[in-house]
Amino acid sequence: MKKVYVKDLKQWVGKEICFSGFVDSIRDKKWVMFVILRDSTGFLQMTIEKSEEKNQELLEIMSEVSVDSTILVHGTLVENEAVKLNGMELIPHSIQVTSHADTLPFDYNNLDGVNLDTRLDFRWLDFRCERNLLVRKIESTFVGAMRNFLLEQDFTEIHTPKLLGTASESGSEVFEVKYFDRFAYLAQSPQFYKQMAIAGGLSKVFEVAPAFRAENSNTYRHATEFTSFDLEFSYIDSYEDVMDFEEDLLIAGLTKVKEMYGEKIKEVFGQEVIVPSKPFPRISLENLYQELHNRYGYVIPSEDIGDMNNETETLTSRYAMEEFGHEFIFITGFSANKRAFYHMRGEEGVLQGYDLIWRGTEITTGAQREHRYEEIQKNAQEKGLSEDVKFYLEFFRYGCPPHGGFALGIDRLTMLLLGLPSLKETQFLFRGPNRLEP
Amino acid sequence: MKKVYVKDLKQWVGKEICFSGFVDSIRDKKWVMFVILRDSTGFLQMTIEKSEEKNQELLEIMSEVSVDSTILVHGTLVENEAVKLNGMELIPHSIQVTSHADTLPFDYNNLDGVNLDTRLDFRWLDFRCERNLLVRKIESTFVGAMRNFLLEQDFTEIHTPKLLGTASESGSEVFEVKYFDRFAYLAQSPQFYKQMAIAGGLSKVFEVAPAFRAENSNTYRHATEFTSFDLEFSYIDSYEDVMDFEEDLLIAGLTKVKEMYGEKIKEVFGQEVIVPSKPFPRISLENLYQELHNRYGYVIPSEDIGDMNNETETLTSRYAMEEFGHEFIFITGFSANKRAFYHMRGEEGVLQGYDLIWRGTEITTGAQREHRYEEIQKNAQEKGLSEDVKFYLEFFRYGCPPHGGFALGIDRLTMLLLGLPSLKETQFLFRGPNRLEP
Repeated sequence: MKKVYVKDLKQWVGKEICFSGFVDSIRDKKWVMFVILRDSTGFLQMTIEKSEEKNQELLEIMSEVSVDSTILVHGTLVENEAVKLNGMELIPHSIQVTSHADTLPFDYNNLDGVNLDTRLDFRWLDFRCERNLLVRKIESTFVGAMRNFLLEQDFTEIHTPKLLGTASESGSEVFEVKYFDRFAYLAQSPQFYKQMAIAGGLSKVFEVAPAFRAENSNTYRHATEFTSFDLEFSYIDSYEDVMDFEEDLLIAGLTKVKEMYGEKIKEVFGQEVIVPSKPFPRISLENLYQELHNRYGYVIPSEDIGDMNNETETLTSRYAMEEFGHEFIFITGFSANKRAFYHMRGEEGVLQGYDLIWRGTEITTGAQREHRYEEIQKNAQEKGLSEDVKFYLEFFRYGCPPHGGFALGIDRLTMLLLGLPSLKETQFLFRGPNRLEP
Repeated sequence: MKKVYVKDLKQWVGKEICFSGFVDSIRDKKWVMFVILRDSTGFLQMTIEKSEEKNQELLEIMSEVSVDSTILVHGTLVENEAVKLNGMELIPHSIQVTSHADTLPFDYNNLDGVNLDTRLDFRWLDFRCERNLLVRKIESTFVGAMRNFLLEQDFTEIHTPKLLGTASESGSEVFEVKYFDRFAYLAQSPQFYKQMAIAGGLSKVFEVAPAFRAENSNTYRHATEFTSFDLEFSYIDSYEDVMDFEEDLLIAGLTKVKEMYGEKIKEVFGQEVIVPSKPFPRISLENLYQELHNRYGYVIPSEDIGDMNNETETLTSRYAMEEFGHEFIFITGFSANKRAFYHMRGEEGVLQGYDLIWRGTEITTGAQREHRYEEIQKNAQEKGLSEDVKFYLEFFRYGCPPHGGFALGIDRLTMLLLGLPSLKETQFLFRGPNRLEP
């Protein structure tokens, strides 16, 4: 018999059902035992009257069941206005204990006092907190909506290799893998292979996949492994086309999230899901520095000139909100020497790329890419990269259309969407320099 | 101005358009130059009349353009019944060369004589062959349809770590990664983490992600890195529920593929896309051995008893077709000692799992999983695995619902769908013991 989920209970009132789930709590009263059952969609009360002879066996079974064990119940779903939960209750005919739970190391309904590392050590118990279950569902919905937007726009999903023959972009932050009698390196991003697809004539491609960075840093927004939502498309006129497209993509994602979870996110996370209006404000780095100085007396440190730092990002969002009433803002005009060699440089060396800031944090670096063989060779040489990226430069030798793209870290997006303090809260399982378990 | 794609040309007849794409071929006649342009959706003829004065500059530009270079054309799209291609042609007003192509190392329209390794070395040129472009689009459609089927069924997409703290399932086939001052290991599958999600109360989860196997073997159906389509769901009664669900999933995927590409697949690959009927035939290994012996005189070698081998798989498909007229067949009753420790054993140690065979090749191993703490511990000990999988066993200590699942290798599926001889033809970029490039 197929399990009925809490979300579908209404259509089963008055009927025999099979309900399988976790035992959330047990209230053992003098005349009755109330058992709250839980599945991934909600809660259901099971009521066992103690006076009834036929219930003695069920009461005996339940007397041995600990909270968080799982049981399989066959019973009748009955309407009962007195029951606060759903206005209905399950009257069991048979109960089978499907798994036993030991005493839990912490109370997942009250995580405030629990050390984050303990929570990560027992991440599967951490997931049992309604809030954390919701994080998973929301991220899945967000990513699913953005992916479907791309498929509707004729994008092709690709799956590029994570094992590379060379250290590629920069050797220092790349993980090395023992690969039979040689070494391989873990991909830091699918950048090179997205562009290989473009050179191959696939005009619009995307990938949602792990990326790896051997960065020994511990911040709220970095991880050694993370999931990157990457796309690239051909036949653009400039990086403005890439920005326009990113607006549409984020609007598609946030529209769906608001529709499905807007109320829940307000209730559980205290955050408003705002579907942004088009166009997002855009400002050059030079003008931004000026604005931040005029408004907030902020002067960018000389070593960061030509780029952003954390404080700039925070102030930039404040500026976007105060000046445009907008949560998003594009920054352009970065210094070419602060950016990757594959970003196109325009006239006078102006970088044809941008950053996108949301709620005080950079969420994207996007750009028109250099697609001309001679130019990309020159850029690589200037960065001293020629040997490691030689295989990549070949992609541009036999014709390649103008193209651009960007990447979004999905756990970072979810963190900002829900107002959570760290990636550790949103990654399925955080990976950092000191964490490879469980 | 936004590029118009070939597939949308009809709505632009008689209008000014911008067309950007590869130069596919040039026929330079006495009075006219015909240029065939190509984008990811098809071909378009550009016609330049030599007698017209205003065309002299365009002809000069085109005289320097090599095949496979990319150009950006502004022009008028004109109906012309004499043009075989689409019955229309592009009359250019301006042409800009956006990239130059060197002489190609082989003719991608005639790959029969080209060594497969050469094709992989220049995979981006290999993609330019219409057939190979189609492989990418079909795989994307197949995977997209299956993923959307799962999302409609309330599955949650997860992104589990590929960097693990222990060698897990079996040390010998695991890639080792230098991870700061210790070692990490690349995930062979997301199996343990799918189940962690299940123990966490996410009742239906899936993931499409890379998996890694340090197997030094070179066959048509193995790779050191491949994309695994993995799912797991709770509250099943037995592995029969898993088989039922896999039927629905494959039907959803193949229905969409047939709808979108059925005709093309017949035309280009000579393959019929058959949407299978339900239920797929099912047979126990014992009965299968008997059938193969009676029908084809085949006797399974003693070392393979309790399992399948390549020859058995081929004959099994022949049997399924002859007996049931069906391309798919489930095999059950495998020997527990030939299967992973996390597969549930039923009464008398009977394995609660199955293989699914399609067109002569195994495409899935699925099972109900062992969710009971004591039992899974016992299974692990029997296989001598206790230390490496200790972290995993903990997932089952605090209650875990009955569950099951399976995995599909998407490149293997695509290979069988299109009747291609090797994974090297379907993987975006093949990875094997001797291949890490490009």
